[in-house]
Amino acid sequence: MKFKLPETPAVRVKGKSFRLAAVDPDAATPFAHKRPSESAARPRLLALRQRLCVLQELLYAEHKRSLLIVFQALDTGGKDGAIENLLTGVNPAGVQVATFKAPSQEELSHDFLWRIHAHTPKQGHIGVFNRSHYEDVLITRVHGLVDDKKARQRFEAINNFESLLTHNGTRILKFFLHISKQEQAERLQERLDDPGKNWKFDPNDLKERALWDDYQHAFEDALRHCSPDSAPWFVVPANRKWVRDLAIIEIVVAALEDMNPKPRPINFDPKQQVII
Amino acid sequence: MKFKLPETPAVRVKGKSFRLAAVDPDAATPFAHKRPSESAARPRLLALRQRLCVLQELLYAEHKRSLLIVFQALDTGGKDGAIENLLTGVNPAGVQVATFKAPSQEELSHDFLWRIHAHTPKQGHIGVFNRSHYEDVLITRVHGLVDDKKARQRFEAINNFESLLTHNGTRILKFFLHISKQEQAERLQERLDDPGKNWKFDPNDLKERALWDDYQHAFEDALRHCSPDSAPWFVVPANRKWVRDLAIIEIVVAALEDMNPKPRPINFDPKQQVII
Repeated sequence: MKFKLPETPAVRVKGKSFRLAAVDPDAATPFAHKRPSESAARPRLLALRQRLCVLQELLYAEHKRSLLIVFQALDTGGKDGAIENLLTGVNPAGVQVATFKAPSQEELSHDFLWRIHAHTPKQGHIGVFNRSHYEDVLITRVHGLVDDKKARQRFEAINNFESLLTHNGTRILKFFLHISKQEQAERLQERLDDPGKNWKFDPNDLKERALWDDYQHAFEDALRHCSPDSAPWFVVPANRKWVRDLAIIEIVVAALEDMNPKPRPINFDPKQQVII
Repeated sequence: MKFKLPETPAVRVKGKSFRLAAVDPDAATPFAHKRPSESAARPRLLALRQRLCVLQELLYAEHKRSLLIVFQALDTGGKDGAIENLLTGVNPAGVQVATFKAPSQEELSHDFLWRIHAHTPKQGHIGVFNRSHYEDVLITRVHGLVDDKKARQRFEAINNFESLLTHNGTRILKFFLHISKQEQAERLQERLDDPGKNWKFDPNDLKERALWDDYQHAFEDALRHCSPDSAPWFVVPANRKWVRDLAIIEIVVAALEDMNPKPRPINFDPKQQVII
């Protein structure tokens, strides 16, 4: 990692021995230590949001590099909420959110990175992936469409692809929103009980839930193999939404501070310009 | 127009006799009548923003129709600011902002709507165009690349294109941000005087400013020819930023209220779903 990690309950994945089960989805340290509650953490969140807005504008004004933020989670893991809360107040003109669903026939008739590549952020922009190329070593693997050998090949392809982006000036951060199986049950039940949330429920989610352990294993394997210093994965304890949101914005702001964007130099003398 | 226009200083373009010069860029009626200042208008702005967030989520939940908002203006007209202020607080995952700059060689080797079509909003989304296909009857016309006959042809092509989108469930709103020549001079000067804004200044803007009258004429002609009830143009007095922002969000919210989106029906019985 190229930047100093802020105090965070999120765990940066480093090395092949990483164990997902070792991360507690309920963790809140150090936030809980100093700020035992959502309300106590709120001033810090608001300060970070303000800073994020400033940094985004500088990145845009620099128009040279970009930031790519990848979100992955199991169903109800909180991707939508995390993205919304991260980007609150950020100028939408400088942000592109790409949501990847089941690939189309045309997308399937290309390599698995083809449709992803089309959505990488341009210079000066923040790109956010709601799901990503990692789906192709997750859902496909759990359902037996991709075997271990193929998965290894794809891990390498992913690392090479992300390296291409990094060398072109894109900083990459990847967040896995880590919830417990019990938390997922409660969130699914809420979608059933609240008529206003019914549309978010898909009976198919229950079939995927039955494969919980397989998903944990597939995630763990992907995280272990694709978390180089230049494009790290962070496992974010996500049972508590405020911990999740604060952990994410802490890391995003720290990365942007490290990038230290500056408005691009001007090639004229402001004093010589005359407005008639 | 399919919806009741709220009280607004913005002027809806209707018919071939429309005159741009008849709209006062400083206008604030009725806002100034009831709410003489930005601070007095603020509660209304905040209420509209909250409502916009709710309507956007419903549009997303419905996942059937979409909204396309086009912004055009002369340099410093306030497109970036208007877009940022309109979308503040709206879930970025449901919004796509497309900024159209000078076309690339590849884009130029297709018809003028080709690159635009690729960015029309998908179902459930709000699409925002920062500049648009109208550039091809504005800058090109002022610089003599498009003659009157070609312009008429393009107006027809634009109307047909927008009609295609409308029939596919996309509501279209178009805003021309109307500033005075004096206001532009002040805003350009500010970009020169404030080192933090230098990067926004382009010496080329002065050459375009010299063509002010030609641009007014080209805009007027485009507005007259391409403002059917189904895809109306609004001329927004934009010398005062708060009037501009309030006028825009009033119209956007009114259009969404008229669309009246509802979450898509579910095809399962919530009571029959058992979470294990």
